[in-house]
Amino acid sequence: MTQDHTPVPSAKQDAGLTADKVRDVAALIAGGDLDGAVRLVGPLYAVDVAALLNQLDDTQRSVLVEKLRGRLDAEVLADLDDSVREKVVEQLGPAAVATAVTELETDDAVEVLANLDDQVRTSVLDAVPHAEREQIEESLAYPEESAGRLMQRDFVAVPEEWSVGQALDYLHDTEGLPDRFYEVFVIDRGRHPVGTLPLDRFLRSRRTKLVGAIMDRDPTLIPIGLDQEQVAIQFQKYDLLSAGVVDGSGRLAGVIMIDDVVDVIREEVEEDMAHLGGVGDVSLARSVADTARSRFSWLLVNLLTAIVAPIVISTFEGAIQQMVALAVLMPVVASMGGNSGTQTLTVAVRALATQSLTRANAGRVVLKEVLVGAANGLAFAVIVGVVGGYWFGLPQLGIAFGGAMLINMTAAALAGILVPLGLVKLRVDPAVASSVFVTTVTDAIGYLSFLGLSAWLVL
Amino acid sequence: MTQDHTPVPSAKQDAGLTADKVRDVAALIAGGDLDGAVRLVGPLYAVDVAALLNQLDDTQRSVLVEKLRGRLDAEVLADLDDSVREKVVEQLGPAAVATAVTELETDDAVEVLANLDDQVRTSVLDAVPHAEREQIEESLAYPEESAGRLMQRDFVAVPEEWSVGQALDYLHDTEGLPDRFYEVFVIDRGRHPVGTLPLDRFLRSRRTKLVGAIMDRDPTLIPIGLDQEQVAIQFQKYDLLSAGVVDGSGRLAGVIMIDDVVDVIREEVEEDMAHLGGVGDVSLARSVADTARSRFSWLLVNLLTAIVAPIVISTFEGAIQQMVALAVLMPVVASMGGNSGTQTLTVAVRALATQSLTRANAGRVVLKEVLVGAANGLAFAVIVGVVGGYWFGLPQLGIAFGGAMLINMTAAALAGILVPLGLVKLRVDPAVASSVFVTTVTDAIGYLSFLGLSAWLVL
Repeated sequence: MTQDHTPVPSAKQDAGLTADKVRDVAALIAGGDLDGAVRLVGPLYAVDVAALLNQLDDTQRSVLVEKLRGRLDAEVLADLDDSVREKVVEQLGPAAVATAVTELETDDAVEVLANLDDQVRTSVLDAVPHAEREQIEESLAYPEESAGRLMQRDFVAVPEEWSVGQALDYLHDTEGLPDRFYEVFVIDRGRHPVGTLPLDRFLRSRRTKLVGAIMDRDPTLIPIGLDQEQVAIQFQKYDLLSAGVVDGSGRLAGVIMIDDVVDVIREEVEEDMAHLGGVGDVSLARSVADTARSRFSWLLVNLLTAIVAPIVISTFEGAIQQMVALAVLMPVVASMGGNSGTQTLTVAVRALATQSLTRANAGRVVLKEVLVGAANGLAFAVIVGVVGGYWFGLPQLGIAFGGAMLINMTAAALAGILVPLGLVKLRVDPAVASSVFVTTVTDAIGYLSFLGLSAWLVL
Repeated sequence: MTQDHTPVPSAKQDAGLTADKVRDVAALIAGGDLDGAVRLVGPLYAVDVAALLNQLDDTQRSVLVEKLRGRLDAEVLADLDDSVREKVVEQLGPAAVATAVTELETDDAVEVLANLDDQVRTSVLDAVPHAEREQIEESLAYPEESAGRLMQRDFVAVPEEWSVGQALDYLHDTEGLPDRFYEVFVIDRGRHPVGTLPLDRFLRSRRTKLVGAIMDRDPTLIPIGLDQEQVAIQFQKYDLLSAGVVDGSGRLAGVIMIDDVVDVIREEVEEDMAHLGGVGDVSLARSVADTARSRFSWLLVNLLTAIVAPIVISTFEGAIQQMVALAVLMPVVASMGGNSGTQTLTVAVRALATQSLTRANAGRVVLKEVLVGAANGLAFAVIVGVVGGYWFGLPQLGIAFGGAMLINMTAAALAGILVPLGLVKLRVDPAVASSVFVTTVTDAIGYLSFLGLSAWLVL
């Protein structure tokens, strides 16, 4: 990743959002020039308006939203961070939000409504026209993070017996088709999908050809209850632009589009990254109280497991009293073990998520990780052994230091791969829980091996 | 993320790759039944064959590749892990690889060739027909991770004055158009793009309409040297399926497709995650020696900064000798600080990458993170102060323990946000270097504040 924050020189440049523009808007609002602020916001795309609102502080945002009332693109609501959206929805009130939700595709409408308080959601939904409300409520009935939530309900479908010309005429003459579609579904009389027609092939085929003759007969179909992570894997594997979603009886219920899946792909890796870093999510916009609360539980778990270190160390109090050098060096062993374990863990969690670490190669990967840990353990054992021995003028201390390093870095690698594999077996998300376990192991073994070896060899 | 490894019940299920299938293939190879193995591999998609080869061990893979020689889909090469591809390319030899490379789109061909040894690449390229070789060499001349590397050179373009009917006839009658395209570019006589025509709108427009009248006039165009991360941000923001790439004089040079960008999006988040976890990349398939080497440098940096802890501790040797409890409790302060800092850091690195943390809101975010760190620091100060005081029957020790916790967790939050912001200012990737700095700060301040406060209050 390069951190190049120069603006992108594209045709959309003038409509883009930069840090300077955010500051300009904030300054205009602070200075009371709301019309000036609106002039800057006007040319922005919905997604940029959302990014702007995410970055303003609560007061500025609320002033700007009030000024934009009635002119705010419905898409902006869909693109806001959850915690910001909550506040904007509250400010706009149920009627205005209902109008926006009605304009959106089902998947975006569901995105807006899913994370609201039950009460707020009900009051918004009550103001949505019946037909849209029914569709949205149906989607909301599917589990969070399932294909049913991700899909939009409008799609284009034609029967297999039609000619390309008939299908073209249908597209020309039919009102109410979805705004965007990336493939045409081919369905039988029972609404079961029997194939798909990519638009490029559709365009290149003459009017007389039969749809059934040029369609792809083996479409990737997504069961409506499938987890969104699995949906994303299908899209990535088969380079899909969109995919039909089928209900329990195999009927076409909706379609998932690549742009929604792109968000899922990013979110799923981000989620793993957040969990490895000990946070629930990486969103910036939550309040201090919410953020502190959500991190507290993580830190509490860490504190409980961090008790292992004092317990181990306290059993060697006598040794430390005899030789304070032990207290000086012991954090180094623990720290190197922690880092080594985190390295293995990071690779393992990602490999599990992408299904490149499976039962088929787990044994080999464990062996490899242990060899890597032991190889680096040996290298650092020599380094710290020599340095430590010289520093304190005690070769035996060097040997204990180096020996502990070798033991702990090997154990760290083993823990880094076995802990996530074990959690998967227990059907627990390895990203959430692994790092605490791994550092507990490396702390315990680090202090135990160093203090134990020292007590034995040096004292 | 849910770790549900049940196979996906789609129409492609039978052609999919499961851990069981990998094991079956491995067992057949080991048992010498190569025909049986090939029968299992036959129905697999290229991407699944690649995943299979990635998971087999070196011997099994080499036997299978030999058996599949001449029948291996060119796409398989593009989908392999870098380290595996290197071995497969070596095994197949320049002539066979050149044949495969010639079949691929430019971007995939470049992917295959980019990471090979210079010598191997040259010998492969020498065997590629002149026209394709020239295109590939031009693409290879663009910087790694730039739009030029990501684009394919074939695209569909029509002039603005054509009618929809003329454009359709052109698509019907022209040989050698790209296999897949997601939009039609509209260009002027100088090959400058003046608009794009989404295929769904193309299909829905009558033959008599003019292309110029129905096209999008404001296309997102990607400068050929743009970093791929910026390309990905454009695609995500504007929900693009493809985007034209323009050279220095504004002429259309190629097109980037969403499926290539999806890989970039995943890779970029993975890269940040890998760097925060202290590894260069998360690939599983590299050899023990390569993996150990690449992780060694990271651990060495950690060792060098970990020296700070012993230096701080050794200045308090006298205090520890008087009271070994200090050595028992001090790792807890360091560990909680490290975790708290990592939490802030994870959020900051991600927010910087997604450009939701910019100069416009940096001040506010820093303040918020410090408040969160201080709030949790206060909570844990009370907890550990009370527990520590009781445990050792020394209220003053509890006060020192709690005070150090508050100081270190606040400092950790500050370091967690200021370090990455500072690195961005210096144009260094914050994901690569931050975590070592942050834990150095939390170690130093943790030991210093706890031992210092204890020496002052308790002894």
